[in-house]
Amino acid sequence: MKPFLNEDFCLSGETAPILYHRFAEKAPIIDFHCHLSPEEIATDKRFSTITEVWLGGDHYKWRLMRADGVPEKLITGDGDDREKFRAWAGVMPRLIGSPLYHWSHMELKKYFGIDFPLTPENADYVFDKTAAMLATGDFSARKLIERSNVKALCTTDDPVDDLHWHQQIRSDGFPVKVLPAFRPDRVLSPEKPDYPDYVETLENAAEIKIDSLESLFAAIRARMEHFSCEGCVLSDHGMADIPFRPVCDEEADRILKKRLGGQMLTADEEESLKTTLLLFLGKEYARLGWAMQLHLGVTRSRNTAAAKALGPDTGFDGIGSPITPDKLYRFLDALESEGALPRTVLYSLNPNDNALLDVIAGCFQSDCGIAHMSKIQHGAAWWFNDHKDGMTDQLRSFAAEGVLGNFIGMLTDSRSFLSYARHDYFRRILCNYLGNLVDAGEYPADPAALQTIVEDICWKNAERYFEI
Amino acid sequence: MKPFLNEDFCLSGETAPILYHRFAEKAPIIDFHCHLSPEEIATDKRFSTITEVWLGGDHYKWRLMRADGVPEKLITGDGDDREKFRAWAGVMPRLIGSPLYHWSHMELKKYFGIDFPLTPENADYVFDKTAAMLATGDFSARKLIERSNVKALCTTDDPVDDLHWHQQIRSDGFPVKVLPAFRPDRVLSPEKPDYPDYVETLENAAEIKIDSLESLFAAIRARMEHFSCEGCVLSDHGMADIPFRPVCDEEADRILKKRLGGQMLTADEEESLKTTLLLFLGKEYARLGWAMQLHLGVTRSRNTAAAKALGPDTGFDGIGSPITPDKLYRFLDALESEGALPRTVLYSLNPNDNALLDVIAGCFQSDCGIAHMSKIQHGAAWWFNDHKDGMTDQLRSFAAEGVLGNFIGMLTDSRSFLSYARHDYFRRILCNYLGNLVDAGEYPADPAALQTIVEDICWKNAERYFEI
Amino acid sequence: MKPFLNEDFCLSGETAPILYHRFAEKAPIIDFHCHLSPEEIATDKRFSTITEVWLGGDHYKWRLMRADGVPEKLITGDGDDREKFRAWAGVMPRLIGSPLYHWSHMELKKYFGIDFPLTPENADYVFDKTAAMLATGDFSARKLIERSNVKALCTTDDPVDDLHWHQQIRSDGFPVKVLPAFRPDRVLSPEKPDYPDYVETLENAAEIKIDSLESLFAAIRARMEHFSCEGCVLSDHGMADIPFRPVCDEEADRILKKRLGGQMLTADEEESLKTTLLLFLGKEYARLGWAMQLHLGVTRSRNTAAAKALGPDTGFDGIGSPITPDKLYRFLDALESEGALPRTVLYSLNPNDNALLDVIAGCFQSDCGIAHMSKIQHGAAWWFNDHKDGMTDQLRSFAAEGVLGNFIGMLTDSRSFLSYARHDYFRRILCNYLGNLVDAGEYPADPAALQTIVEDICWKNAERYFEI
Repeated sequence: MKPFLNEDFCLSGETAPILYHRFAEKAPIIDFHCHLSPEEIATDKRFSTITEVWLGGDHYKWRLMRADGVPEKLITGDGDDREKFRAWAGVMPRLIGSPLYHWSHMELKKYFGIDFPLTPENADYVFDKTAAMLATGDFSARKLIERSNVKALCTTDDPVDDLHWHQQIRSDGFPVKVLPAFRPDRVLSPEKPDYPDYVETLENAAEIKIDSLESLFAAIRARMEHFSCEGCVLSDHGMADIPFRPVCDEEADRILKKRLGGQMLTADEEESLKTTLLLFLGKEYARLGWAMQLHLGVTRSRNTAAAKALGPDTGFDGIGSPITPDKLYRFLDALESEGALPRTVLYSLNPNDNALLDVIAGCFQSDCGIAHMSKIQHGAAWWFNDHKDGMTDQLRSFAAEGVLGNFIGMLTDSRSFLSYARHDYFRRILCNYLGNLVDAGEYPADPAALQTIVEDICWKNAERYFEI
Repeated sequence: MKPFLNEDFCLSGETAPILYHRFAEKAPIIDFHCHLSPEEIATDKRFSTITEVWLGGDHYKWRLMRADGVPEKLITGDGDDREKFRAWAGVMPRLIGSPLYHWSHMELKKYFGIDFPLTPENADYVFDKTAAMLATGDFSARKLIERSNVKALCTTDDPVDDLHWHQQIRSDGFPVKVLPAFRPDRVLSPEKPDYPDYVETLENAAEIKIDSLESLFAAIRARMEHFSCEGCVLSDHGMADIPFRPVCDEEADRILKKRLGGQMLTADEEESLKTTLLLFLGKEYARLGWAMQLHLGVTRSRNTAAAKALGPDTGFDGIGSPITPDKLYRFLDALESEGALPRTVLYSLNPNDNALLDVIAGCFQSDCGIAHMSKIQHGAAWWFNDHKDGMTDQLRSFAAEGVLGNFIGMLTDSRSFLSYARHDYFRRILCNYLGNLVDAGEYPADPAALQTIVEDICWKNAERYFEI
Repeated sequence: MKPFLNEDFCLSGETAPILYHRFAEKAPIIDFHCHLSPEEIATDKRFSTITEVWLGGDHYKWRLMRADGVPEKLITGDGDDREKFRAWAGVMPRLIGSPLYHWSHMELKKYFGIDFPLTPENADYVFDKTAAMLATGDFSARKLIERSNVKALCTTDDPVDDLHWHQQIRSDGFPVKVLPAFRPDRVLSPEKPDYPDYVETLENAAEIKIDSLESLFAAIRARMEHFSCEGCVLSDHGMADIPFRPVCDEEADRILKKRLGGQMLTADEEESLKTTLLLFLGKEYARLGWAMQLHLGVTRSRNTAAAKALGPDTGFDGIGSPITPDKLYRFLDALESEGALPRTVLYSLNPNDNALLDVIAGCFQSDCGIAHMSKIQHGAAWWFNDHKDGMTDQLRSFAAEGVLGNFIGMLTDSRSFLSYARHDYFRRILCNYLGNLVDAGEYPADPAALQTIVEDICWKNAERYFEI
């Protein structure tokens, strides 16, 4: 029996611990997709309690607290920080098998040196001890990033963002690269009531009057130039499914004008406009050498009462309807047919899509100008799949259908400065998967080849792929 | 190599056997969903051959006999009991990896003390030996239930049932709680040719004239009151997919009247009426404090020739079309929006739905008044998934997305008095899953915490959740 | 740690190596579905480089080369053989976890005695060494088949094929049975622009004028007679989904005539015609005692630019939209209702369909006249699923829902004479799965029972099922 959370956590057999401790443990982090606040990094935000840094904004933990019957007052309500922390500590012992049980203890250990299981009995002790530590200067946003050995990170930013926090971070001489990433979800959401208002904001940001498809394209291009100047190298899209109902630009122009005129669109018009915009964006990404991330299969705010009371991103999103393979094939094919398919990273919130995404990726691979690199990537296990089994399944599927040595690896996708422990979690699971193959005689015990694979997947492939 | 079916069957590693033998093996059973016949319990049915008690009505075994080429005469036909048993024994050695291979031998061992593998060679011996044992008084329906350490069981009953067998069982002083459960599938089946007849039966049972939506509601309410008086605490629904096409009550009333007038409904009308009825029922369950079980994704009697020859429930049902996530979200949300979402247990016959159901459950969790309890549950692996891998997958998924310590655990879903061995099978698989996590250092080797988790999942959570 | 690719490759625990080495390793091969060229067998084709025999036509390897950024010139282009082989060797070390990594090394070892990992450093050595070996007479098509211990193989042939190569092979006295298999995909593809031309070819082959449904049926029947005379015992269909939109023969006749008249069909007409033809074929298969293979869930040539440049079967096919369970149930039921359901083997390219196919099979099992045989089979893991995890998942699912001892086992589905190593791969994985169950005490360590199961699945069941 292995002690809980020891140095070989998640590492079984002979080879896995060697791979991890030699090649992965101390490797730098390229966190190419996260939701950290540029403002909090720029202002080097400090935290006064573990509740603030750990439970504030963490809808993963909120969901589990609700699933344990904790009243909302102690989750997102006005309960005091100590009580909230106690409530979370009360859930912990029941979380056997949960990634949150792992992450939480990995974070307590990595950042606070607490290496015993959190329970209701020791919650006050932990609350007080971490409060004392947070009061020192070692737990500010920037200190946490630096202590985590982060080499570069990409935030997630709206096209209208002026990126002045990024500029400030850069001009401050912060040694970690903090790059913006282009997330034009609102541009692609004509179904939202405030779409015309959003377009007006975009108009102002771009300083281009938007009254046609052509001028919308021009405004988007202007914002992309701005993002490029600030070091942006990748985009991101989150959506339920890939839209694919292509129409000519004249028709898309008509639809856009209808919407900007205040009218809502039919479902077909909506999909047509989205298709036009997404194809345009894809080509622009290819032109600029950006990568395109597609996060598919998500459905948002499914609990109306909670959405009204608490707003978005509070733990009521879910796995959506199955994605439509045909549309994804056709979308990628449409770009490829024009020689304008950018490097693309595919994610689905539905774990059943692993093989599908790997096989679709395999239909569009080609030389992207980087040696030993897969142009189309199946991204790391996302959100609800970001657990030991989910990550292992994604690795197995990637390895079965593609070239695992070319995988760009992990990202935190997180709002928390403590979430870098997830890279550690991933690396352990990766090394365990690889090491077990070696132990089983399915890959040679070749240290140089294994070092290359581990380091490439941990960070070098991401650095090469995104040209960060 | 471990001997076949020894005391540590399905238990690997250091911790799993300890958890099982200390906390699970002798724990009582709360069998909150089964298809046992109240009449057979009330009359304390006896069996004369193992064929009768074991192969009569067991469509799981029938399917495998057909898949081995056994002629129907020896399955459901007029073959004699000994020949039928020989035929089943002939299939057994080929069933490597089958849950039926496990259940069958667990049942032979638990109830008959037979601890060697059943083969064609020893079939006659087993037939004779079990016949002799069945001739004693120890194998009646009630004896089998009592010997299985069952504390309470819930049968599955139509709203029109007068529940007199339940009353008799109770008045007899049978020490095991035998409660009815409310299964109004026929109320929700206007597509069936005999729907008007069924409604008439309901009318008589409720002593309320049903000629409108309002009077149908009243009749259903009357039956629910009757079920409540008999101790009912949960309902059950089996269906291909959740209906969700909400209409106003006036429209539903019109549709119902059309159907009661003898006309068949359009597909839209059918779904609208079902939606209205299911929403009504959900609110009633919430009002009464009942739990709602939703068994989704089943399709019935797909072999027309067999259905004609043998009738329903003879082994020709299957996994249906994928469920529609959007409808399930909207159905639960509609209830939650009115503050009328009852405790709900979600099952799907499609194993691909594990993550989806766990994530949907997570969108509707809230304080249900029971400490450390998940209001929305993903039910144990169902029917075709009720095997070692299927149960483990359900546990992994539950643990990854929810609070596994709050899981209400196993049910037999069976027509057989020998099926309590399935609880034992589940408990072994549960303890194996939990113990392996401890052995791997993924959860502390904390005996008190583990005892709580094991006992809670084995029976205490079910008792608390259903308030039995 | 186990050495890479030693004699116990893929075999873990105590029992698995025993099962493999005693009962599987030297067992003959019945390769009931492959894409070997009858012409190459008849002419006993020889190969001059490993590139020709190994990389020519192998779109599995091509996909991985593209995913490693290898330029197309070195994949399907006019690069020279040595350079192409070097390019493939360059991908190899990055293929940890890939079935191609396993197959490739198994083939190098089995046929060329090369037992070290292929790397860029030793690529030239391997190229030269294999070239020298190929120059001997031991690597012709027939020698490779004979060296592989193949007892019988079934090619894949169009109904218009005159099968003269098969006749030649037979008359040559080649000791291996080389049987044709009937693959009428083009008959079932009225959506293809050249459908009328194809029908004309069929007309000529059958020497029957085709101008109606009846005459089309007659022509197909004539071809089936011809195939039967040449020893055909099974058919094969590859398609995206089962068509099921039944119409009367008069309507199908009208649709066929419309198409033969040069008009394209509506989607409904297309599905109706396909349904009529597939039902007709199913009944004919039943009449002739042939088995019917249904390969479902595939989508073809999704990369338009590549399809134009390289043609079909070059590595751009993928997993298609989910199959429609209801249509598959209804199709099988329609045949069963007429007492005309042939022995049927179901495959899906989507790994999520495992449980579904096993459960559907279970709804249509019956006595097919062969003792201990399952009439409806879930075929071995297909194409993108033909890897260690995929094969194990298929076995687990088959075992959970059916009688694994009746499984007809592996096929190569390959164009390469070296692919018989896949049978070896399957047998190791099979023995590992079975042996692990025994080691875990889930099946008795009964040598005779295990020998029967292993030999049956390796080859005897296939021989019995297809009556080869």
